[in-house]
Amino acid sequence: MSLKGACIFGQSGGPTSVINASAYGVFSEALKNPMITRVLGASHGVKGILNDELFDISKEDEHELELLKSTPSSALGSCRYKLKDPEKDDTDYRRILEIFKKYDVRYFFYNGGNDSMDTCNKISKYLMSQNYECRVMGIPKTIDNDLYGTDHCPGYGSAAKYIAATCAEIYRDATVYDTGAITVIEAMGRNAGWLTAASSLAGLSGCGPDLIYLPELPFDLDDFIARVRRCYEEKGNCIVVISEGIKDKDGVFIAEYANKNASSDAFGHKQMGGSAAYLALCLKEATGAKIRAIEFSLMQRCAAHCASETDVNEAVLMGSEAVKAAVSGMTDKMVAIKRAEGSEYKAEVAMLDLTDVANAEKKFPLEWITEDGVGIKKEFFDYALPLIKGENPYCWENGLPRFANLKKIKAQQA
Amino acid sequence: MSLKGACIFGQSGGPTSVINASAYGVFSEALKNPMITRVLGASHGVKGILNDELFDISKEDEHELELLKSTPSSALGSCRYKLKDPEKDDTDYRRILEIFKKYDVRYFFYNGGNDSMDTCNKISKYLMSQNYECRVMGIPKTIDNDLYGTDHCPGYGSAAKYIAATCAEIYRDATVYDTGAITVIEAMGRNAGWLTAASSLAGLSGCGPDLIYLPELPFDLDDFIARVRRCYEEKGNCIVVISEGIKDKDGVFIAEYANKNASSDAFGHKQMGGSAAYLALCLKEATGAKIRAIEFSLMQRCAAHCASETDVNEAVLMGSEAVKAAVSGMTDKMVAIKRAEGSEYKAEVAMLDLTDVANAEKKFPLEWITEDGVGIKKEFFDYALPLIKGENPYCWENGLPRFANLKKIKAQQA
Repeated sequence: MSLKGACIFGQSGGPTSVINASAYGVFSEALKNPMITRVLGASHGVKGILNDELFDISKEDEHELELLKSTPSSALGSCRYKLKDPEKDDTDYRRILEIFKKYDVRYFFYNGGNDSMDTCNKISKYLMSQNYECRVMGIPKTIDNDLYGTDHCPGYGSAAKYIAATCAEIYRDATVYDTGAITVIEAMGRNAGWLTAASSLAGLSGCGPDLIYLPELPFDLDDFIARVRRCYEEKGNCIVVISEGIKDKDGVFIAEYANKNASSDAFGHKQMGGSAAYLALCLKEATGAKIRAIEFSLMQRCAAHCASETDVNEAVLMGSEAVKAAVSGMTDKMVAIKRAEGSEYKAEVAMLDLTDVANAEKKFPLEWITEDGVGIKKEFFDYALPLIKGENPYCWENGLPRFANLKKIKAQQA
Repeated sequence: MSLKGACIFGQSGGPTSVINASAYGVFSEALKNPMITRVLGASHGVKGILNDELFDISKEDEHELELLKSTPSSALGSCRYKLKDPEKDDTDYRRILEIFKKYDVRYFFYNGGNDSMDTCNKISKYLMSQNYECRVMGIPKTIDNDLYGTDHCPGYGSAAKYIAATCAEIYRDATVYDTGAITVIEAMGRNAGWLTAASSLAGLSGCGPDLIYLPELPFDLDDFIARVRRCYEEKGNCIVVISEGIKDKDGVFIAEYANKNASSDAFGHKQMGGSAAYLALCLKEATGAKIRAIEFSLMQRCAAHCASETDVNEAVLMGSEAVKAAVSGMTDKMVAIKRAEGSEYKAEVAMLDLTDVANAEKKFPLEWITEDGVGIKKEFFDYALPLIKGENPYCWENGLPRFANLKKIKAQQA
């Protein structure tokens, strides 16, 4: 079972507030592990391997690596690069193998969401098919919380905390006048409503939204306008949170109503956003009320100053456990979180087959949506509250964020 | 000089993260001051006086009042109500005097920005003209930092800290791919560029915007597109921050290009917003690049979880000093901040005539803008850094904000 060699760690997909915390988990564990001879970081995920752009992590300052725990986004750079089917075109795979051999890479850790687990899975299977001994481990990351098999996903807790706290703060602001207003807030989530649902937690601060629209249910524009109008007329204010991914009964994104030329990324996903602005226009026309559209945009995934301590700790744990598991002989797996039985929240580590998680999607449970379709049930609060618990220490310096400052020294062949 | 009676405190205009901290300053000082027989809070500013909707602050729980220091927006409710010229229509003024007599109000504290100081000034002058003895004090508040005569304004430091920190975080996120992107961020500021300029502070974290457009200089769309394109082509990324109030050389708001039917409030101010979205569309057409428009919207004025400790302390100070000054005999003034001479930052209290501050506006100094018109000079950093210093303790409870929960018991006539 014993395997000695270099490791490569790569970050992929949309950034989160805690993806660098997983990097810290991998680096700190790998740097001290005697089976790992070198710790390399890939520049812009798998692209860095293809381009032979690898950083020598052992040359980084220890304090700067520590700061990764409160540095948002992907410190090594990310990518959205889709590997082809190796049976049709194995160019990229042969190149990856070449680089792995060049640096004697025997451990590969890839941190990302659904698409990145697809990349990780394909690389794992290819290396096996070539009988190249290398332990491949996926490390989960996504604010969307839509990764299959894991109780929840590092990145979600912090984004959920940002959304809940910000919704509560906006509630205070948006209801301050006695002249009434409608506020339409847009959260990310193309197909899964986990982030949008997190806005309901603000209700526990007494400042929750009135209506919540997840992408799991078909969106009806007329019904939406009628409900908002009723709420506005009854309360004098209405705060509604929608997911960027809400679709009508024919599966057409509301964002597409607004922007017919929305562009797509390498995975064929439409660039979203703009649904709230579009709905605000519809509501303005229908009600004449004062209306504001707010998009949480990048802030929901990069507001590390508001990160959940639980989330950061679990992100670190996923990184270090991936290293430990690989060294102990495991491969072709994704590290995951299992919620321990019992009333006290406790995260346990689980291992899932990469084949199972690649491209699979976990949606928000329909049974956690209230009967009227515009609210969230207590079951979700019980699920989500432990994940937003605690405030991660953020490094402020002279009133400004102090992020990890990596030297990123290019690795030379040994 | 000795005057005994009740006091009324009111909050007016757009909320900030720290307007309630000034309320705390007034309440804590007034509740213990023997000359002040009752402490009343006006519901929705001057409207609460006109409607005889006053809260009895002495009936509030002490701990909840303390929590005001980290509760955003206006806990008593705010208003945008413009008092008429008393020479043309003195109805409102007579009503105010009637209420003041009803509750034996001898102290009036009004917390707000330019327009609110106009209200405060008018009430002050009217009461004098009626020989009704009442000490009237304005307490400054605005995220815009455009109040005349004060070195800076409570509310600005926290909004500036939010903008600087969030710009730094967005920079990390928006530059994570090697495929390039343009990000257009919109900050508030109808006529004054103080908030937009605060984005330059992110540069001290190594994550500053490339181009900054303040409303103090005329905005040229063609030149804007050319500069962004050049930056994008040279660096592969471009982050640009614009003020919502940028105007072309003919004084037309860029927001109006986007929204010809923008509505106006009671003071005749156009409802802004949407400039970034409009410019993003222009840039998309011109460059074909991946573009994202981000509006800081209400978050920049209500993100109390990211408030500046200096700002909160100064907001409390303004409130308590207003009470002390009024009790000592002062009236018809606005409390203000004077920066003490010397290299160490120190805020001193100054008193300005209400007549001078009402409706006056303090713009961003042109000499602090770089020669090319799209950057901010070091003089501003020296000015702004002390104002964003320190992190105000925020009350989190189970991972969520815990705001002040006032009982708001309606005051009865004594």
